Amino acid sequence: MFARLGIFGVGLIGGSIAKAARLNQLANTIIGYGREQDLVNLKLAKQLGVIDEYFINDAIIADLKNHSQSNDCIIIATPVASIESILQLLKPVWSDNSIYSDVGSTKVNIIEAAQRVFGTVPTNLVPAHPIAGAENSGVQAALNDLFVNRRLIITPTNNTNPQAVAIIKQFWQQLGSSIFEMSAQHHDSILAATSHLPHLLAFALVDMLGHKNEQSDILKYAAGGFKDFTRIASSDPTMWTAICSANKTEIIPLLEQYKNELTKLQSLLSSDNSDELFALFNYAKQTRQHFLEQFDKPKE
Amino acid sequence: MFARLGIFGVGLIGGSIAKAARLNQLANTIIGYGREQDLVNLKLAKQLGVIDEYFINDAIIADLKNHSQSNDCIIIATPVASIESILQLLKPVWSDNSIYSDVGSTKVNIIEAAQRVFGTVPTNLVPAHPIAGAENSGVQAALNDLFVNRRLIITPTNNTNPQAVAIIKQFWQQLGSSIFEMSAQHHDSILAATSHLPHLLAFALVDMLGHKNEQSDILKYAAGGFKDFTRIASSDPTMWTAICSANKTEIIPLLEQYKNELTKLQSLLSSDNSDELFALFNYAKQTRQHFLEQFDKPKE
Repeated sequence: MFARLGIFGVGLIGGSIAKAARLNQLANTIIGYGREQDLVNLKLAKQLGVIDEYFINDAIIADLKNHSQSNDCIIIATPVASIESILQLLKPVWSDNSIYSDVGSTKVNIIEAAQRVFGTVPTNLVPAHPIAGAENSGVQAALNDLFVNRRLIITPTNNTNPQAVAIIKQFWQQLGSSIFEMSAQHHDSILAATSHLPHLLAFALVDMLGHKNEQSDILKYAAGGFKDFTRIASSDPTMWTAICSANKTEIIPLLEQYKNELTKLQSLLSSDNSDELFALFNYAKQTRQHFLEQFDKPKE
Repeated sequence: MFARLGIFGVGLIGGSIAKAARLNQLANTIIGYGREQDLVNLKLAKQLGVIDEYFINDAIIADLKNHSQSNDCIIIATPVASIESILQLLKPVWSDNSIYSDVGSTKVNIIEAAQRVFGTVPTNLVPAHPIAGAENSGVQAALNDLFVNRRLIITPTNNTNPQAVAIIKQFWQQLGSSIFEMSAQHHDSILAATSHLPHLLAFALVDMLGHKNEQSDILKYAAGGFKDFTRIASSDPTMWTAICSANKTEIIPLLEQYKNELTKLQSLLSSDNSDELFALFNYAKQTRQHFLEQFDKPKE
């Protein structure tokens, strides 16, 4: 499909893209790009056969210049906070022969970053977000099938070349994903509710109980429910600081709404309103059941 | 160990106790007790060989009278809201030859219920709580090894016979559990934080997003993080209404504290304080790691 697949950030997501692309023969050569501090991880990625070669710093530009005529795909799979600086780095060697994409968990800020760097969003930059992940990070956590039966959201701008969108769609379909297309605004609003908010809630709970625990050892008696509930609080703090900051305008009102929900619970408890408490719990159970049956079929 | 093991409520927990007691040969005969509406489940439990016999309504009293000289153990494994009425039912046939226990998720209210029914808590009633469970319910969800490598908390009163405590300890040790002893107050305060609060938070999130989802289909794009985070929102609403009501004095202040934690997050986001946001996420990640390493060794 591509002569070369270049990946900035060969971590869990970038590494899994590389592995799945190799498995499905979507690129002749897979290259990892990074910074000084990524060297250990990039070396490991090459050693594991996840990538064929890697370049850091100035060598990236040299490599991209050498292949500016080639039919390549460049995917930025770094934390969202780094994407603007990578676009800046790519600007002088941006090639019409290549297609560019990213996997950022927020999309409005990526499009705004591209506008700042290029004036208008390049027609061959296709913003995308695979709804997949895990709390582990680094290339050693990468999986062949991380994207199989997962959803991938593409958020093209008015400017995006439909041909480029079609190619990125095809690429992800071959990795096993189901493709959905929507505006970046809609994406950010949905993901704030289903992903960013739960992550913040889990971090908040563990932070709060952790400080309590220092005095009383309460976590000693925590069980499976707590473990699952807080799994996402083991997610990478750097990555999540960037995501939450990037999407704060969507997240802050949701936190407010959630606090109101908790106030409602407090009041149902105080007033011994068991009927409404039951109704709320029951509605939640039914809703989750509906979610499991309707949307969670593919995997797990 | 016991001539007869009688279990009120042969559901996930009661059924798992029966299965594990049978496997470990801790009782010659295992009896299920219930109400009219439990008949289907009790029949199924007998059919599955989980219990040897069952009795409902008045037949329970007749059965207990017939065996009042026998070395029996009666465990109440119903939702906490029913325990007082079961103690009331047992009062006329309460036997000094038997040991009584329960598996309620809250302990102060059980002790208070016993005080109301008996005047003082009977010396042979040993309040206990296995820290184990799942979101499924009914005898078909019961497991042989639900309590293996799990913690069991016993909360004796000043009145409880140490001999009875020792026997209940031994019983649960043989089911594979590690035994901890503490006051009912301390138990309720710890469990409010590590179990009741997370359940309420999960119910609250699914309730909130469920109502949003009716308009916008947002749950369609929810992923594994959401699924794990909300697993406990699939728990039995009746059981959790009772638990939360029973322990509301511990839970309400925790909800307040948690709302303050969320207000802190909102303010860190609004003020773009990435350093402190990162520090909070990172502390949470480390704390959870510590929890996993220190306390979660046994199983899963």
